[in-house]
Amino acid sequence: MEDIQENIQFQLTDDLIAMVETLIENRDDKQLKNLLNEYHFADIAEILDELNHEDSVYVIKLLDSETTSDILMELDEDIREKILDQLSTKEIAEEVEELDTDDAADIIAELSEERQKDVISQIEDQEHKAEIQELLKYDENTAGGLMAKELVKVYETWTVAGCLRRIRGQAKDVTRVHSIYVVNKQEQLIGRLSLKDLIVAKSDQKIADIAKDNVDWVNVEDNAEDVAKVMAKYDLEAIPVVNNSQTLLGRITIDDIVDVLREEADKDYQLAAGITQEVEADDSIWELTRARLPWLVLGLFGGLGSVFIMKGYEEIMETVPSLFFYTPLIAAMAGNVGVQSSAIIVQGLANDNVKGSLLNRLLKEVGLALINGFALALLVVLFGYLIGQNSTESLAIAISMMSVIIVAALVGTFVPIILDKRGIDPAIATGPFITTSNDILGIYLFFVLSGVIIGF
Amino acid sequence: MEDIQENIQFQLTDDLIAMVETLIENRDDKQLKNLLNEYHFADIAEILDELNHEDSVYVIKLLDSETTSDILMELDEDIREKILDQLSTKEIAEEVEELDTDDAADIIAELSEERQKDVISQIEDQEHKAEIQELLKYDENTAGGLMAKELVKVYETWTVAGCLRRIRGQAKDVTRVHSIYVVNKQEQLIGRLSLKDLIVAKSDQKIADIAKDNVDWVNVEDNAEDVAKVMAKYDLEAIPVVNNSQTLLGRITIDDIVDVLREEADKDYQLAAGITQEVEADDSIWELTRARLPWLVLGLFGGLGSVFIMKGYEEIMETVPSLFFYTPLIAAMAGNVGVQSSAIIVQGLANDNVKGSLLNRLLKEVGLALINGFALALLVVLFGYLIGQNSTESLAIAISMMSVIIVAALVGTFVPIILDKRGIDPAIATGPFITTSNDILGIYLFFVLSGVIIGF
Repeated sequence: MEDIQENIQFQLTDDLIAMVETLIENRDDKQLKNLLNEYHFADIAEILDELNHEDSVYVIKLLDSETTSDILMELDEDIREKILDQLSTKEIAEEVEELDTDDAADIIAELSEERQKDVISQIEDQEHKAEIQELLKYDENTAGGLMAKELVKVYETWTVAGCLRRIRGQAKDVTRVHSIYVVNKQEQLIGRLSLKDLIVAKSDQKIADIAKDNVDWVNVEDNAEDVAKVMAKYDLEAIPVVNNSQTLLGRITIDDIVDVLREEADKDYQLAAGITQEVEADDSIWELTRARLPWLVLGLFGGLGSVFIMKGYEEIMETVPSLFFYTPLIAAMAGNVGVQSSAIIVQGLANDNVKGSLLNRLLKEVGLALINGFALALLVVLFGYLIGQNSTESLAIAISMMSVIIVAALVGTFVPIILDKRGIDPAIATGPFITTSNDILGIYLFFVLSGVIIGF
Repeated sequence: MEDIQENIQFQLTDDLIAMVETLIENRDDKQLKNLLNEYHFADIAEILDELNHEDSVYVIKLLDSETTSDILMELDEDIREKILDQLSTKEIAEEVEELDTDDAADIIAELSEERQKDVISQIEDQEHKAEIQELLKYDENTAGGLMAKELVKVYETWTVAGCLRRIRGQAKDVTRVHSIYVVNKQEQLIGRLSLKDLIVAKSDQKIADIAKDNVDWVNVEDNAEDVAKVMAKYDLEAIPVVNNSQTLLGRITIDDIVDVLREEADKDYQLAAGITQEVEADDSIWELTRARLPWLVLGLFGGLGSVFIMKGYEEIMETVPSLFFYTPLIAAMAGNVGVQSSAIIVQGLANDNVKGSLLNRLLKEVGLALINGFALALLVVLFGYLIGQNSTESLAIAISMMSVIIVAALVGTFVPIILDKRGIDPAIATGPFITTSNDILGIYLFFVLSGVIIGF
């Protein structure tokens, strides 16, 4: 047991990739295996993400299915899809045999319906097969779609000694034993135990006597995001999943939840920035265009709408030209305020942090917009004074801007709330959506109000 | 063990809060205890977040320190601060005794230096005290700042039977045993075991023979975010922390990592939306103003910059007024494209997903901007045709817009990359920062290029 410490920081270098590519080109299987076996499967997945897809398939076919099944799970979905296309259903079935039921079901769900059947029919372990088939029935965004069938279950009537004996059998299939779940004769979840409790207990004690009865659980149909929130809030590392009759069906572990939370955060962030579909910096130009262009077109239509509005005020260009100079400022303020308000609300809704009545929220947003708007309006008046602008015009601009800020804050606050109440993801109401509608609304309001104040 | 199942979905209702407030007002301690003891500490923390702070202090003083210590950890930091202000150092020391070392150190670190000393001197458990003092030395953004001293450690020379016997002692202090860490005589980490391995092994086997030697670890000085990424990537539920001599110092568990990841995601999201400091929808107007106004002022300066630029072109208002109508559109496009590009890069940097040379990235961004810009330019020309605009003007607007989009994409891509290379958080280069600089740059470029094409 010497020099076994490996620093956990893996660095994917161009040199390493070049080395792997050379070994593949030379078909130097022995060296390649030796090299790759030094790395964690998650690191090998990062290497494969960089290879062309024939090379990736070559590596997958070369290594043991015990390793490759884990690698497959770590790959980007689009790369995994391409690799699975090149594998026979028999080969996929072998990979699936090695995976926990939740990962196995996830991989199979990505295949065409026909290949799904082929792969399932070639799974040799009958229990594994039945469990995967059960998991495939659940929607991927529910607790059922996240859970694995692997868990350690004991009956309340067992003794500690008998329990330890039988657990040795069950635990072999379970990578990590977080909790031991206690069920009654009807397979209903009634409590839990930790391995520690079992070790500390006397061997002739009954399970029913040492089990903790305050066991948290989720229903198989619960929303995946809600499950993630609950596990994060209560610091749970695993949670059992039951059906409506309280029958124990599976368990969800925190590593899956970490993925759900990260994906959710990434998606919200991208929506706020005007990017649909989950794209990464290294995706193809075409994928990036599809994700970005629609939002830009939305913004363009907004801009063209402003062109129309301003065209309607063409005749005042000679008398009060300065109003036109301020339109980008007005649009920017309306956009920024709208994005700020919507982001806070979207995050609050995500964390169940938005309480109190709509009226209170309205008053608060108006108050906040008044404070911010007033401070900004002062700066605008000061600026107008410094550049020797007509003071009525400066005042008109400042007051209109303040009104625009208030309206923008209200739009930014209430559009997400309304969407959320209607069951639509409020995150779509951030970014370009709010900026665009606030741009048009802001510029329109700006000219109308300035007109009233200056008198045109 | 009947009807022990509690649905995990806790709903914080106005009724519940009103009930708690009434019980506090009536000083009905017994009822209040009965009511609150039905809830999980994380739920009680949510209730306290809604109470005024005298009431919160009342509840904290009423309940057992075993529960209240956990509640304190779950509270919003500003509320916890107010409550701790009302507790004596003796009372805080009692709370701290109940907490794991990592949480204990976090709470103490929030106190003034003087109170820190007082609290520490009143901790009765000497080992706990020494461990907390050690943890207080580490920066909160490092592995040392995240780790707890509670762990289960065995020596390689022990037997399985001896190990089980001694673990019973150690495990009592450890809430969750993820891994058992194996050390040599010099206290250096050399391997790990799971409780499962221990249960499955024969009782006379030596630990050295059954320990797994591929143990991952982090250095006590590693950055907290890097530790979070590593644990998420390798699906680790706990990781040991060592110093430069490989001495085992502590361990980090995944629940702390979930918090790091969430905070990081929330912070990036807020920065992208133009909000500094972590604020929530329910914070006070004053806190929200402080978080939002600076970014709005930045945006205002940007807008005033545009006023200057446009004023410089005042004389062409009569000849080509339409250019002025398009300025909000140009600003919107420059802003949207910049935010999209920066968001993808910031996310890519966070996930270590930005590979390849700067030149490749530059070519890709230009290519992407050309495709998007061309599609949008066509729409602008079409729009100009439909509203009967002078075709030279339409073309000038379309071409200038395309150039603005390319420049905006480059700014959005490279500003975060440059910041990251200089060790500055690239997330600050999203949102208002990018929109504002792109607004000014875009409008300037738009007038200059249109001038060249139309000839003014």
